[in-house]
Amino acid sequence: MSKLAEFEPVFFPKTHAVIGASNSPTKFGGRFIKTQISFGYKGKFFPVNKDEPEIFGMKAYPSVRDIPEPVDLATILVPAPAVPAVVEECLQKGVKAAQIITAGFSERDEEGIRLEKDISEMAKRGIRIIGPNCFGIYCPKGGLTIPPGESLSRESGSVGCISQSGGYGIRIPRRADGLGIRFSKLVSYGNASDVNECDLLEYFYEDPDTKIICGYMEGVRNGHRFFELLKKVAKEKPVIIWKGGLTEGGARAVKSHTASLSGQAQVWDAFFKQTGAVAVNGLDELMDMLIAFLHLPPITDRKFCVVGGGGGIGVAAADACERVGVNLPVFSRELQQKLLGIVPAQGASVRNPVDVGSPFPAPPMLKATLDAVFSGVDIDGLIISEIEMSAVSRPGQADFMRMEALAQNQRTPVEARDKFGKPLIMVLPEESNGPEYTESEGARRQVADNFLKQNMPVFLTLERAATALSRFIRYWEKRSESQ
Amino acid sequence: MSKLAEFEPVFFPKTHAVIGASNSPTKFGGRFIKTQISFGYKGKFFPVNKDEPEIFGMKAYPSVRDIPEPVDLATILVPAPAVPAVVEECLQKGVKAAQIITAGFSERDEEGIRLEKDISEMAKRGIRIIGPNCFGIYCPKGGLTIPPGESLSRESGSVGCISQSGGYGIRIPRRADGLGIRFSKLVSYGNASDVNECDLLEYFYEDPDTKIICGYMEGVRNGHRFFELLKKVAKEKPVIIWKGGLTEGGARAVKSHTASLSGQAQVWDAFFKQTGAVAVNGLDELMDMLIAFLHLPPITDRKFCVVGGGGGIGVAAADACERVGVNLPVFSRELQQKLLGIVPAQGASVRNPVDVGSPFPAPPMLKATLDAVFSGVDIDGLIISEIEMSAVSRPGQADFMRMEALAQNQRTPVEARDKFGKPLIMVLPEESNGPEYTESEGARRQVADNFLKQNMPVFLTLERAATALSRFIRYWEKRSESQ
Repeated sequence: MSKLAEFEPVFFPKTHAVIGASNSPTKFGGRFIKTQISFGYKGKFFPVNKDEPEIFGMKAYPSVRDIPEPVDLATILVPAPAVPAVVEECLQKGVKAAQIITAGFSERDEEGIRLEKDISEMAKRGIRIIGPNCFGIYCPKGGLTIPPGESLSRESGSVGCISQSGGYGIRIPRRADGLGIRFSKLVSYGNASDVNECDLLEYFYEDPDTKIICGYMEGVRNGHRFFELLKKVAKEKPVIIWKGGLTEGGARAVKSHTASLSGQAQVWDAFFKQTGAVAVNGLDELMDMLIAFLHLPPITDRKFCVVGGGGGIGVAAADACERVGVNLPVFSRELQQKLLGIVPAQGASVRNPVDVGSPFPAPPMLKATLDAVFSGVDIDGLIISEIEMSAVSRPGQADFMRMEALAQNQRTPVEARDKFGKPLIMVLPEESNGPEYTESEGARRQVADNFLKQNMPVFLTLERAATALSRFIRYWEKRSESQ
Repeated sequence: MSKLAEFEPVFFPKTHAVIGASNSPTKFGGRFIKTQISFGYKGKFFPVNKDEPEIFGMKAYPSVRDIPEPVDLATILVPAPAVPAVVEECLQKGVKAAQIITAGFSERDEEGIRLEKDISEMAKRGIRIIGPNCFGIYCPKGGLTIPPGESLSRESGSVGCISQSGGYGIRIPRRADGLGIRFSKLVSYGNASDVNECDLLEYFYEDPDTKIICGYMEGVRNGHRFFELLKKVAKEKPVIIWKGGLTEGGARAVKSHTASLSGQAQVWDAFFKQTGAVAVNGLDELMDMLIAFLHLPPITDRKFCVVGGGGGIGVAAADACERVGVNLPVFSRELQQKLLGIVPAQGASVRNPVDVGSPFPAPPMLKATLDAVFSGVDIDGLIISEIEMSAVSRPGQADFMRMEALAQNQRTPVEARDKFGKPLIMVLPEESNGPEYTESEGARRQVADNFLKQNMPVFLTLERAATALSRFIRYWEKRSESQ
C-alpha cells in the first residue's frame, strides 16, 4: 500500500472517535473536542465515555465498539494503564488509525515500558498508531489540530513537519504562523511506538502537498533505514532537521523525554554531510531555513552583493557573509565608477559591500543602486541590509521618515528582483526589544509580512541571513552533485 | 592631567559652539542644534554662521573667534575642505575640544588623507578632537546627544561605549534603550584623527560613572598600547568588544569606512584570550553581554540547573548549555525523589534539566520546584526556560492563561533568587514574529522589562542565554586567575 493511502485515515479522517471524551471544557477530554470543532473539523465526531450518554450535545458511546459506523481515526486520552485495552477495542472495531496523546509510557518507568510494548505489538495486527506521549496531528486540510493548536492557521501550505516533542510540535507552527509559513501536515509523534520518523518521511516524500520537510527529532529507531531514506528524500525535497540530545546532558534529557537513544554528535555530523539533509539548532535557525527554501530559487554559487545603509553595516555584512563562505567579490572599476555617480559623495562606499550612506536612502538612489549592481556584475544574489523600511515612532524625526519614500523603498527591491530575475534577500532588524518600541515593531512586522507575501525572504539579522543562505546554497550544491 | 579633567569639556561643556549652524531645520546644521536643545542641553549655545546674524532666535557669530565667552566644545559641521581653517580658528580662540561630524577625509581619497593629517597635527597644539567622519558624543548627564539620537534616553547609566561606526553608534544605544541599558557616555569617534580607542578606554577606566565598557571597533592605531591598556582595564571593569573587519571582505569594507587597518582574525583571537576582554559578534551578542554584566553577580563556576516547561525544551536547554561548557549535573536521588512529589506524575522530568510538564505550571508547583532545587543542590545558578509569563492573545485559550497565575509566576523567580541568594536567569522567547502577534509581543516585553528592572537577566532564546553565560563566566574566571 502506498503511504498516501495508508495515512489517508490519519490526516483526512471522515469519522473521528475521541476516547476519554468529557463534558467539562476544563478537562483535557472536553477541551480536545472543543478545540477540534472550533478548528473546523468537518467529519463526524464520536465521543466515547463510559458514564456520559451525551457530550456537548453529541451522542456518546460507552466503547468504541458501540459506534454504529466505521471509524477512521481514534484519539486516545485515557490514562496510560487503560490504553492497551482501548487499543484492543479499536482493533476489534476495525479502527484504521489512532493517536495516543497520553503520557506515562517508556519515558516514565518499567511499567510504562511494558505498556508501550503491548501497544507496539497490537499495532502489527492492523492499526497505525501515533504516539503515545505526543500531541498528534495538525492537518489544516483535514480539519485536525493538536491539543494546544486551536489558534493555528486554517490555511494549508507546503511544509511537512515531524516533531518528536509536543512542545516543539506547537512552538514550530506557532512561530511559523506569523512568518506566513503554512503546513501540509505536522505530526508530533512522541515515543514512536508504531509510526516513526521513517514512516513519516516516506509519507512526506510521496505527498504532493509537501514540498519542504522539517522536523525536531530526539532519536531514531532504525538508523540504517533512516539514513538510506533521507538520502533518497533529500534529493527530491529539502529536509531540515533539528536534532536534540547531541550533548551528554541533552542525551540524558532525551531519555526522560521520549525514551530515545540520541546518538553521538560526530555520527550525526557525518550523517548530515552524507545525506544532504540540512542541520539546524534551535527554532530560529529552523524558521530561517524554511524562509529560505520557501522564497528563494535554487542557488549553487556564492557570489553575492550587500547593499547597506551605513559603513559599519557594510563591515558587519561582509564579516557575516565571509565567515560562512558567502563571498562578496570586489566590483569592477567601471561599476564602482558608475556607483560613485549614484551614492552620496561623502560617507558612502562602492566596492561591495555598497554603503548608500544612510539607512534612509532617497528612493531614486536606492533604485539606481540596485539597477547598477544587477546590470553591472554577474552575482548570484543581493542582500539589502538594515535599510529602514518601516515608520518608526521616534519623537521629532518625522521629517526623516516620509511615508511616501518608505513605501517606494519597499517596492524597489521587489521590482529590481523581478526585473533582473536574481534572488534578493532582506535583512530587517528590530529597532529595539523594549515595550515602548512595540508599535515600531508592529510596523516592521507589517513590512516584513508584505515582503514575505511577495516571496521575498526576510531575516532579522545579518548573521542569521548569512548562515541560512550558506546552508541553503550547500543543500543545492550537494543536490546538484548527486544528480 | 587626568583623563577625567581632560575630557570634562568634551562630556560636560558649559559652552558649546556649533560651526556650520543653519536656520533651516531640514539642514544638518539646523537639525543638530534643534536636536541638542530638545535633548536638554543646559549650557550656552553659540551658533556660528558667516551669513546669518541669528539662528533659532540665538545670536549667531561669523567665526568662533567672535564668541565673547570661553568655549568648551565646538561641533564642526562644515564641508571637509573647510575644516582645517575652522580648527585653526578654534585653536586661536582657545576652544578645549571639538567634534568633527563631517565625513570625506581619509576614508575617501588622497585629498581627504591630507586634510585629516592637518587636523591631527593641529590637535597636538592643544585641542582634543573627536572624529572626523563620526556622530560624536552622547552623554545624557552632560545633555549631549549624537545627531540621530534625539529620542535616546535622558537617563544616565553605568555603561561606557565607544563606536568607530556612526551607524552602530546610534544602533547600540537604541537597541539598548528598550532593554533598560543606560549609558554614562557613548562616543562615535570615526577616523580617530586625535582621540582614539586608547584615550577613551583610559577615560572610562578612570570614570566613576562607568562600570562596564563596550564598543564596536574597526581598527586600532597603536596595537601595543591598546593591548597593555586593555589588560589593565579588563581586570577592573568588564570590556566587551565587537571587532568588525575580521574577514577579507570585512577588512575591505573597513578601509572604505574608517580608513582603518583591521588586523587578522587569529591575532585578535589571541588578543581577546590574553587581555580578558569579551569578544562578541553583532548587536544581539553585544546586548546579551551587557544584560549579563548588568544583572548578574560574578560567577566563576559552571554548575547550573535548567527548569523548563516541556521535555523538548529541557533537551534543547541541555544541548545549548553543554555546547558552550555550562554544565547541568545530574541531581542526587534524594532531590529527584523530592521533585517527583512536586511535578506532575506524567510528562515531567526531574534529573536536571527539570521539566515541570507544561509551559503553564501552577504557581505553587513552580515555587516548590525552585525551592527544592535551590535547597537541594549546590549550583551556581538556575535558568528558567520557556515558561510562559505573559498573556498571549490566542482565541479560545483564556482558561489556560489566568492573569493571576501569570502574575504569581512572574514573582516566583525573583522571590526564589532573593531567598536563596543564587543567580537566576530568564529565557522569554517571542511567541511569533508576525504582525498579528504584536500585541502578545508587547505583553512579553512588558514582563521582560519588569524582570530587568528587578535585576533579573532576560534573554530571547536559550542559545543566546547559554552563550552569554559562558562568556560571562569565562570573564570572571580569567579575572580571578589574574588577581
